[in-house]
Amino acid sequence: MTLWRKALAELLGTAGLLCAVVGSGIMAERLAGGNVAIALLANTLVTVFALYVLIEVLGPVSGAHFNPAVSAIMTLRRELPVASLGVYLAAQLTGALLGAWLANAMFDLSVLQWSAKVRSGWGQWLAELVATSGLVLVILRAPAGKVAQLVACYIGAAYWFTSSTSFANPAAVFGRMFSDSFAGIAPASATGFVVAELIGAAVGFSVYRLLPPASA
Amino acid sequence: MTLWRKALAELLGTAGLLCAVVGSGIMAERLAGGNVAIALLANTLVTVFALYVLIEVLGPVSGAHFNPAVSAIMTLRRELPVASLGVYLAAQLTGALLGAWLANAMFDLSVLQWSAKVRSGWGQWLAELVATSGLVLVILRAPAGKVAQLVACYIGAAYWFTSSTSFANPAAVFGRMFSDSFAGIAPASATGFVVAELIGAAVGFSVYRLLPPASA
Amino acid sequence: MTLWRKALAELLGTAGLLCAVVGSGIMAERLAGGNVAIALLANTLVTVFALYVLIEVLGPVSGAHFNPAVSAIMTLRRELPVASLGVYLAAQLTGALLGAWLANAMFDLSVLQWSAKVRSGWGQWLAELVATSGLVLVILRAPAGKVAQLVACYIGAAYWFTSSTSFANPAAVFGRMFSDSFAGIAPASATGFVVAELIGAAVGFSVYRLLPPASA
Amino acid sequence: MTLWRKALAELLGTAGLLCAVVGSGIMAERLAGGNVAIALLANTLVTVFALYVLIEVLGPVSGAHFNPAVSAIMTLRRELPVASLGVYLAAQLTGALLGAWLANAMFDLSVLQWSAKVRSGWGQWLAELVATSGLVLVILRAPAGKVAQLVACYIGAAYWFTSSTSFANPAAVFGRMFSDSFAGIAPASATGFVVAELIGAAVGFSVYRLLPPASA
Repeated sequence: MTLWRKALAELLGTAGLLCAVVGSGIMAERLAGGNVAIALLANTLVTVFALYVLIEVLGPVSGAHFNPAVSAIMTLRRELPVASLGVYLAAQLTGALLGAWLANAMFDLSVLQWSAKVRSGWGQWLAELVATSGLVLVILRAPAGKVAQLVACYIGAAYWFTSSTSFANPAAVFGRMFSDSFAGIAPASATGFVVAELIGAAVGFSVYRLLPPASA
Repeated sequence: MTLWRKALAELLGTAGLLCAVVGSGIMAERLAGGNVAIALLANTLVTVFALYVLIEVLGPVSGAHFNPAVSAIMTLRRELPVASLGVYLAAQLTGALLGAWLANAMFDLSVLQWSAKVRSGWGQWLAELVATSGLVLVILRAPAGKVAQLVACYIGAAYWFTSSTSFANPAAVFGRMFSDSFAGIAPASATGFVVAELIGAAVGFSVYRLLPPASA
Repeated sequence: MTLWRKALAELLGTAGLLCAVVGSGIMAERLAGGNVAIALLANTLVTVFALYVLIEVLGPVSGAHFNPAVSAIMTLRRELPVASLGVYLAAQLTGALLGAWLANAMFDLSVLQWSAKVRSGWGQWLAELVATSGLVLVILRAPAGKVAQLVACYIGAAYWFTSSTSFANPAAVFGRMFSDSFAGIAPASATGFVVAELIGAAVGFSVYRLLPPASA
Repeated sequence: MTLWRKALAELLGTAGLLCAVVGSGIMAERLAGGNVAIALLANTLVTVFALYVLIEVLGPVSGAHFNPAVSAIMTLRRELPVASLGVYLAAQLTGALLGAWLANAMFDLSVLQWSAKVRSGWGQWLAELVATSGLVLVILRAPAGKVAQLVACYIGAAYWFTSSTSFANPAAVFGRMFSDSFAGIAPASATGFVVAELIGAAVGFSVYRLLPPASA
């Protein structure tokens, strides 16, 4: 399978994920009349459904990372060639941008906009670290054929048990900067989240190596 | 298997789908006391459950299209004989009508009624295009044995991430015209939705052909 | 496997089902502060989870009917010996009663109580007929190994798309008479529901025979 | 597989479970604006997702008990060596404590805190007995490969059909003492819950032995 098809799958999948997260955030905010718990509940269900579908449908093409932190870990594990890593990251970031823009367009908002939602502080950075380490653990230990439902359910839980609502994905951070809505994140808050996520990925990988092989 | 039994399955399945969508819309509107987010949440869960059940139970008979756009794509792919297409469409539209009428009857509403809910504009038309292209992609790329849960989860997500709540189905547009409720669509808005859906189906089929075979 | 063990499984399963339906109805009513849509949403999820678990866990013992209408259909199909039918019905009705009583006891309510909730009229009777015919169709056409999730999802949808919230089970009608709460039904309304359900079971069985065999 | 790795899995899993339960309780309470039904709905979904993921991912290492009552039953059945029981319990209690503390830290609360939420009375003790007996039955009778989804769905139902919201786990009781929030339990109420849970585990095990083997 040629690299450009894998890149297309990563672009489509990350676009689909961001479109689902941002679009459902806009819809939920419009309908929920200020009840944030109901908005997050809808946002959660949509993210769970979307992740499950995207990983099942595109996983056979590219591995369905949709996440630079995951691609980095897969490169460390030599499951993704170093030479492909840059292409994967570029496809993911492009997809994230296009997905957010598509959501904006569907909801008749100006396509280019920036989030003003500040998300920062030690609690939220710890939350992103925890969320990403758990995600890496779940991916690396998922029994064969179950990674799609496990990742989807994990993120669905992490939306609520972390104080940051678990972005756990630098491409998601990037795409959400382009939505001034429920799901957005101000560009000034992005670096803190991404750093915490990359540390979290390393922590998750280290814990993974303490446990026996998943197939044992 | 004779064609009339396939037609019966398409009629029953589309009736079941529309009855679920319209009936749960009426129930949700009555109970939610104006909280539209909760109404759409209930409508979403019911649609997900109903789609999953109907596709699993009737798929072995007719392929469980319940959707003229899907039948058209299957004809293009020579999985549905051209000679059967008309019968499928007639069964789907009849089923959609009967399903909406059955919901009206169960809720003690006048059986024959028309929706007054205008749904139009470029944002919603783009949304229907996106929703239907995604649906076609999911159907064509679903791994063996997983199409029911993937279609159900996809539509559950698309109810929220598109501004149109993702009809994604000309038969659903047709049936929902006969319900002056939460889930309805005014007849005058139907053409715009159907055109967008057919373009979306073509877009989804084109993207599908850019990706490697699902079994690769 | 001896008949008394099957009867024990039917009793435990029907008790578990009624305890889940009645108990979650009481909890939801207490917490929802008058928002009936949220109460029914919780009641729906709990019923879906409980049905799935009970059918998976007890199905291998007794077939997991938990429903006199289903047992009657299985007797017609010669999958349940005529001589066992009475024992099954007695176990189901006893279980339904005990399940409702157990829920009352856990919530510090008087164990013996009667529902005052009138549920009647042609719309609701049609709804029970439709709900039960669909349930019979789903059970008879479920692919091997999927009956538990299909029945659970079907009932989850039918709670909302029927005006009666889909009892679809004479034993559930019986047990719910003993709970003066969200999920209850006044004894005077029971006969209408049960008659509609039995007609619905017959309708579902007839439609089933029009379709080709599930394995075809 | 060495015992310390099993202990690590029990510690991680119980920490993950408590972090999910407590963290989502804090988040739900903050967002729900006093609507306790919505808070419990979110708490329920998160617990279902988390249990499913944790059991799938860590089950192959330690059996994924995360629950002293379950470990005790497994010791009785000689599936867990008596010599390992103490290590399992220590790992579960330590994990429960760390999970609650981690949730507190992520939400910028003081890490060390005690719950003031009194939970007691015969109704709630009966509820814990019922909840734990059902949990043991589900675990012991789960068909091969389905224990994760069955336990997750069972607990999701039991959160609502029991008046105690179904702790059903002495380690969960222990960990929740350290959270003065929606999900907490006052230390003075802990003993009653734990005693009821242990009796419930014994009841569940007895009922299990009345039924035919799960594989029959």
